[in-house]
Amino acid sequence: MYRTHTCGELTINNVNQSVTLSGWLQRSRDLGGLTFIDLRDRYGITQIVFNMETNALLCNEARKLGREFVISISGIVAERSSKNLKIPTGEIEIIAQKLTVLNQSVIPPFTIEDQSDGGDELRMKYRYLDLRRNPLKNNLQLRHNLSIFTRNYLNDLGFMEIETPYLIKSTPEGARDFVVPSRMNPNQFYALPQSPQTFKQILMVAGYDRYFQIVRCFRDEDLRADRQPEFTQIDCEMSFVEQEDILNIFEGLTRHLFVKVKDTDPGIFPRMTFADAMKYYGCDKPDIRFDMRIADLNELTQNSGFTVFDNAELVAGIAVPGCSEYTRKELDALTEWVKRPQIGATGLVYIKYNADQTLKSSVDKFFDPVSLKQIAEACGGQPGDLVLIMAGKENRTRKAIGELRLEMGNKLGLRNPDVFAPLWVVDFPLLEWDEETNRFYAMHHPFTSPKPEDETLLATDPGKVRANAYDLVINGVEVGGGSIRIHNKQLQREMFSVLGFTDEEAQHQFGFLLNAFEYGAPPHGGIAFGFDRLCSLFGGSESIRDFIAFPKNNSGRDMMIDSPSTINAMQLDELYLELKTPKSN
Amino acid sequence: MYRTHTCGELTINNVNQSVTLSGWLQRSRDLGGLTFIDLRDRYGITQIVFNMETNALLCNEARKLGREFVISISGIVAERSSKNLKIPTGEIEIIAQKLTVLNQSVIPPFTIEDQSDGGDELRMKYRYLDLRRNPLKNNLQLRHNLSIFTRNYLNDLGFMEIETPYLIKSTPEGARDFVVPSRMNPNQFYALPQSPQTFKQILMVAGYDRYFQIVRCFRDEDLRADRQPEFTQIDCEMSFVEQEDILNIFEGLTRHLFVKVKDTDPGIFPRMTFADAMKYYGCDKPDIRFDMRIADLNELTQNSGFTVFDNAELVAGIAVPGCSEYTRKELDALTEWVKRPQIGATGLVYIKYNADQTLKSSVDKFFDPVSLKQIAEACGGQPGDLVLIMAGKENRTRKAIGELRLEMGNKLGLRNPDVFAPLWVVDFPLLEWDEETNRFYAMHHPFTSPKPEDETLLATDPGKVRANAYDLVINGVEVGGGSIRIHNKQLQREMFSVLGFTDEEAQHQFGFLLNAFEYGAPPHGGIAFGFDRLCSLFGGSESIRDFIAFPKNNSGRDMMIDSPSTINAMQLDELYLELKTPKSN
Repeated sequence: MYRTHTCGELTINNVNQSVTLSGWLQRSRDLGGLTFIDLRDRYGITQIVFNMETNALLCNEARKLGREFVISISGIVAERSSKNLKIPTGEIEIIAQKLTVLNQSVIPPFTIEDQSDGGDELRMKYRYLDLRRNPLKNNLQLRHNLSIFTRNYLNDLGFMEIETPYLIKSTPEGARDFVVPSRMNPNQFYALPQSPQTFKQILMVAGYDRYFQIVRCFRDEDLRADRQPEFTQIDCEMSFVEQEDILNIFEGLTRHLFVKVKDTDPGIFPRMTFADAMKYYGCDKPDIRFDMRIADLNELTQNSGFTVFDNAELVAGIAVPGCSEYTRKELDALTEWVKRPQIGATGLVYIKYNADQTLKSSVDKFFDPVSLKQIAEACGGQPGDLVLIMAGKENRTRKAIGELRLEMGNKLGLRNPDVFAPLWVVDFPLLEWDEETNRFYAMHHPFTSPKPEDETLLATDPGKVRANAYDLVINGVEVGGGSIRIHNKQLQREMFSVLGFTDEEAQHQFGFLLNAFEYGAPPHGGIAFGFDRLCSLFGGSESIRDFIAFPKNNSGRDMMIDSPSTINAMQLDELYLELKTPKSN
Repeated sequence: MYRTHTCGELTINNVNQSVTLSGWLQRSRDLGGLTFIDLRDRYGITQIVFNMETNALLCNEARKLGREFVISISGIVAERSSKNLKIPTGEIEIIAQKLTVLNQSVIPPFTIEDQSDGGDELRMKYRYLDLRRNPLKNNLQLRHNLSIFTRNYLNDLGFMEIETPYLIKSTPEGARDFVVPSRMNPNQFYALPQSPQTFKQILMVAGYDRYFQIVRCFRDEDLRADRQPEFTQIDCEMSFVEQEDILNIFEGLTRHLFVKVKDTDPGIFPRMTFADAMKYYGCDKPDIRFDMRIADLNELTQNSGFTVFDNAELVAGIAVPGCSEYTRKELDALTEWVKRPQIGATGLVYIKYNADQTLKSSVDKFFDPVSLKQIAEACGGQPGDLVLIMAGKENRTRKAIGELRLEMGNKLGLRNPDVFAPLWVVDFPLLEWDEETNRFYAMHHPFTSPKPEDETLLATDPGKVRANAYDLVINGVEVGGGSIRIHNKQLQREMFSVLGFTDEEAQHQFGFLLNAFEYGAPPHGGIAFGFDRLCSLFGGSESIRDFIAFPKNNSGRDMMIDSPSTINAMQLDELYLELKTPKSN
């Protein structure tokens, strides 16, 4: 028997009991007469004490133990003289009677503490040591809890979890697939799914009207920070529903998770159209923990003689509360910030709407105080606020001032990770035009249905068609997205045609879905949540990597197992493959 | 609103209510004045009635509907005059007031009935139609239930579900890997996991002492009936445990599933050593729903002058209860059965131990009645039984008579799929010798630990070493298997060396695990259940394919999506791959 209790459960109520604990040596302190060891397992830390006077042999053994040794201790629970009330076991210690070394450890390359001294690379390589630290342990426990709560919530509502295949078919539309050569079908390949989209729609055709799956997805994209080649989705689909049904069910799920995990009820989620999100927040995933909405200032700023405004497609501003006393230096720093390539603006205009109601601006020359006040108030500014204005091409300017708004929110501490502001963004456009390839792309995916009232525009003005598509945004992060799907074969064909597919291409890639639509497809729709991101959001972190047990680095490598790696010639032969030498750069 | 109720919930208590239902047209009967439609959804079937007298227009519309049309019906719930008490909704019908055709259907290629007229290939191709049938729907519901019950049971015991990566590293040991070329790391490959074995051991090193995962696994093997290239495991691992702890926990899980799903408690699972299983049942996964144990008859059968017995390494028999009156023809058929290549025996000897205590045998010439009786009773035979005896090389004979035992069990109806007889088989050998490659292979896998008392044999007589390894067998089916692992780096190295790995090979393939063992690996062990097989067992079926939503056929093809398939030249270029033409056969 390795243990009678864990290292997290003994309290003052267990005093005088004989116990056995097993775990890792977190730290030891040799005080001469007494040696203390903090013994750690998944559940906590318990102090063990060895007494040189009463048991010199055992105490000497204990002194030889190094950090991260795995040991088993038997002894008597005793009340501590100096208590640590910060941890549940802090009122007791174990007076050791027996010590067994279960395994030794060499000295770890970084400290196993909440704040580790290990760099990212080192921690990825020795992931098993990093995972011993409390922050990561708490993250994985949170992830487990979220998955259990999600499954039980959906199960209670009659959803069935149905596993869809991982070895599927490559479809060049959308992001790049990972492919898997087939040995039994020479020169043919499976693809790993970017999502179970078509399969869940097939399940709707098959009559499984409430489906979900917590499922791995794969995308072979160039990795940006915080993108992983494999990631997890909560994937859901329903039949005989309208958009409203789906929003309600999954708002319910999200609220349930907040209540269970964060002990907070965020109430009814507000809704915002895509058009309003772009107009007032400059992006399709507004962080509404704070207001500071973007105001269109074209009317108020024309014909002042300030050519930057006069020539701009859009002049837009925000009122930053309480910042009218920003110094020259601070304002210059903001200007530099918006000029960075990530934002790409050419400049920044300010109006200080001072507390004494006077106004001062970088465009004093062109606008009198009355005009400045009008502009400031159009932005919702009040005395004491700083109004920041940008101008230029509409899309780029909106995006830029949206970014500035978030930056000012950060500076003012308005983006508290412990505050949660969920939001439905609805009425997305069905299509977006790509200048480069000179064609429309599906904004969500080719299976999203147009709003019935916009359906006729599909033939005449496809860019104007709005979709029954929605995103769940929390704190400026897109947590989930979905749509009501096309269930009519004719409309699906029309959609493929707008997207530039020939009938043959559509049939080759999605024939099975189009065929399925011949046999009685019900109206249906669904949603998918990015589970890694949901976990990091609940965990109050921006890094999804810390919520994945074994993440890959930005080159798609698993540093711990050193993968991908070469395979041997026989494996290649069996797959009828030959390697080509990559061009050197 | 598509529906107020499902097609499975309306009863006599809902009479006179206005309701809306949506679903598929299962069948319709036109009786002139009345047209009846059976409307089907996931939850059941409800009868809809259209009355030509009261609403001719609607009734005429209803007559035009074809099988599998998707329709929505509004109407009033009424008590039926002729009730069908076999279904929950059989006491009522809906008097239709409104009919909406949501989608049409062409005529399905097979009937959507419990007993379909579709062949396997056709049903695989139109899987979405096959999945509409009750048997498959019930199978997937059972699978969902088993997964939910498993997760909650393990969660309640403090197990954490932790997702391990699907893009890992190829290890030539064991079965063949599916590989995934990496675009970002040219000429390198990921592999899809055959199991998360090394990752779950890494998690134990990381301190996650109770892990589980319901997880997909992949093996690129030539497919036999009922093998799938991707399959699902309930994968579990624990730290600070001995074999006894693991057997208890997972016996508890299995019993819980029986109670929840089958409403039956199979009680304490018996245990049997591998040696006894082979000796008494001729295989390592005995079906103990019936006895009919194999008896060794060498001593009783020597020196009779019957050279087949005299020259045999093993003479073994079983007593088949109540079959002493088998005819010549039946006995000949049995002899033919054991001579088939799958069994490969050269012949079969019988002794009829008649009800009147007389004996008749195919070897009367060599054995007197006293000897025959001795032999029959050594097999446990009683008057009325038929004793069947085989002889030859030990291993092959044991296996053959084990197969004959199962066949006789089938014939006698002793293998009732509604009776469940779980069994732990323990004390597996650590290694098995392969004549062809002239080396030892790990019987479970290279991480299985020898029994401590056998450890010294590893250097002197490896074939004799028993492992702390165990299988859970139910009704002759291996449902799960696992072992206590090696946690000591030195012992792990020794094991690799016995398996013929050089230090370099071991380091290249499993270096990350050996490295992890340097940093305080706890004692640990685990088990994995074949989830597809568990589902089929609970479902009383031998085919796992019927418990997988989208299975592949014996060539590893998904008939529905027509995959694997070719990929385009650009995809190959990006992956630095070239195809080789396979040799024609």
